[in-house]
Amino acid sequence: MESKLLIAFPYFFQKSFLLNFAAMKALIFTEINKALELQDIPVPEEGNGLVRVDIKAAALNHRDLFITQGLYANIKTPCILGSDGAGEYEGEKVVCYPALDWGDETAFQGPQFRVLGMPENGTFAESILLPKANVLPMPAHLTFQQAAALPLAGLTAWRALISRCQVQKGEKVLISGVGGGVALMALQLAMAKGAEVYVTSGSEEKIAKAINLGAINGENYRDEGWDKRLKAASGGFDVIIDSAGGDGFSRFASLCNPGARIGFYGGTLGKVNNLSLQPLFWKQVSLLGSTMGSPKEFRDMLAFVEIHKIVPVVDSVFSLEDGNLAMERMQGGGQFGKIVLEINA
Amino acid sequence: MESKLLIAFPYFFQKSFLLNFAAMKALIFTEINKALELQDIPVPEEGNGLVRVDIKAAALNHRDLFITQGLYANIKTPCILGSDGAGEYEGEKVVCYPALDWGDETAFQGPQFRVLGMPENGTFAESILLPKANVLPMPAHLTFQQAAALPLAGLTAWRALISRCQVQKGEKVLISGVGGGVALMALQLAMAKGAEVYVTSGSEEKIAKAINLGAINGENYRDEGWDKRLKAASGGFDVIIDSAGGDGFSRFASLCNPGARIGFYGGTLGKVNNLSLQPLFWKQVSLLGSTMGSPKEFRDMLAFVEIHKIVPVVDSVFSLEDGNLAMERMQGGGQFGKIVLEINA
Repeated sequence: MESKLLIAFPYFFQKSFLLNFAAMKALIFTEINKALELQDIPVPEEGNGLVRVDIKAAALNHRDLFITQGLYANIKTPCILGSDGAGEYEGEKVVCYPALDWGDETAFQGPQFRVLGMPENGTFAESILLPKANVLPMPAHLTFQQAAALPLAGLTAWRALISRCQVQKGEKVLISGVGGGVALMALQLAMAKGAEVYVTSGSEEKIAKAINLGAINGENYRDEGWDKRLKAASGGFDVIIDSAGGDGFSRFASLCNPGARIGFYGGTLGKVNNLSLQPLFWKQVSLLGSTMGSPKEFRDMLAFVEIHKIVPVVDSVFSLEDGNLAMERMQGGGQFGKIVLEINA
Repeated sequence: MESKLLIAFPYFFQKSFLLNFAAMKALIFTEINKALELQDIPVPEEGNGLVRVDIKAAALNHRDLFITQGLYANIKTPCILGSDGAGEYEGEKVVCYPALDWGDETAFQGPQFRVLGMPENGTFAESILLPKANVLPMPAHLTFQQAAALPLAGLTAWRALISRCQVQKGEKVLISGVGGGVALMALQLAMAKGAEVYVTSGSEEKIAKAINLGAINGENYRDEGWDKRLKAASGGFDVIIDSAGGDGFSRFASLCNPGARIGFYGGTLGKVNNLSLQPLFWKQVSLLGSTMGSPKEFRDMLAFVEIHKIVPVVDSVFSLEDGNLAMERMQGGGQFGKIVLEINA
């Protein structure tokens, strides 16, 4: 990886341009609504409390796509995207906590909190600089690609399902929009907890795949009456995990058992309308907003994944050079599981 | 109270009609949208694990009004309404837990749970039969009328604010629609916990009264920009207590601090629309439905009220004979605090 180059560089990292230095390949976000650029850039140097992880696999998140579409605040270019990475550090196989500066509170992230991959450089590169505390041993039963599929999705699912909704053995869980990385991790974590899991999707194929993974049943939310059929099949839910919001969210009220918890970590289908509070307060329902998770939650999640030998679902694997094809796969929405980039495989 | 009567009775309690028995006065709900009827009926006899409390004061709740308007499921007539009562039992001053059969769970009431005053006879009478566990010592600093103002409102506020939202000393609390019994109890409990409390109301006079009670500030929710002014004045809220729902509910998202809890125990202004989930999950906000509370919560609330010498706000006092005037006062919505019936004062 660290071949010596003597060529001139593009505009990126001009300030650190040297006649003789170690270089690495990275996928650079240079402009909104433009393809990512594969560039050779200087290998970042350790120091100031930061260590260098040699990335062997990275994974995409919707966040990466939204950033390239300009849908995030404070867009900064140029920048290496990517929040998820697994690789090597000092000869050990490691996986990276996908954020910085959670802060002091358990209940929420502090004002300095940020996810890897803008503003700081992310994992779509041959190496990344991170605080040493972000670098943790990889669960031994996973490959680099499987481990790269774990961090952000596993952490988000863990906090929503375990920390916030506190799912218990034997409880009935509904996971909406199965197929996305977080939803699938929530499915796998809930099953490992001993819950009975039902799913929704807009795709019959994804429902079938979720049932193959262990879900009891599923309904296509495009079909009229999906909620009533789910209620009849399950008898009601103790935990619901959702990232869609929108009009479907209000239907959850009637699906809730007394004491139910609805964990939500997204709102891709827009604002919630027509939400009746009466069934929610009468049944003592908790609606729990959740995003990401703390370093402690990340360590707890890794330990749980290792104990229960959970293998994250990988949808597809692309080379770093084919990073834009990977982004297109995500934009198409057909994936079931994580889209992974293999790097120096 | 227990004068011997030899007259014939109205249709009510015909089955237990006797030529010679102890009688008591009671306000009877006989028909939807009809005034309550003051009747002489037999004094209920102890037995089957039930003891008789001689009521000295009762208090109204919106529930009583809604029942007379037919807005509750499973309306049953004839029935004595009233959930709140204080009085005497075996020579001791007592206050009554306002419900039956909470059930075994802390998180929610069981399927047999019911509030006093339909289907079982309630407190708008000279006496009531209750399980002995419902009868608790009255906080010593209160009069019968003040103690009667406490049960259902205090219990509902306690569960929403303390059990569900877990308000902490120094936190900023917003209580909407101040003037109602639960909202005022929430104000008083939050202040006793050491929180800084702000209020909203549709009445300047009620806001002024709440500030007199110790609220820091308030805004009239009928005035454009109330939410922005509250945000500017407070810096944001850690806990919001609401029973209105409706369009104002969605405004709370921008008022929440990270980790905020919104406790809601009603939805009198109807369904919630235009609710954006993004600020809620990003700030890790919890929306916590709450209603009533368990016997343990009632005992905890009574102990807290006694320690902190909290005196429930009594709006007005009517005689049992003037019960329908009391109901009209509640329907008018002008009250600030509880509307109380004095009985055998």
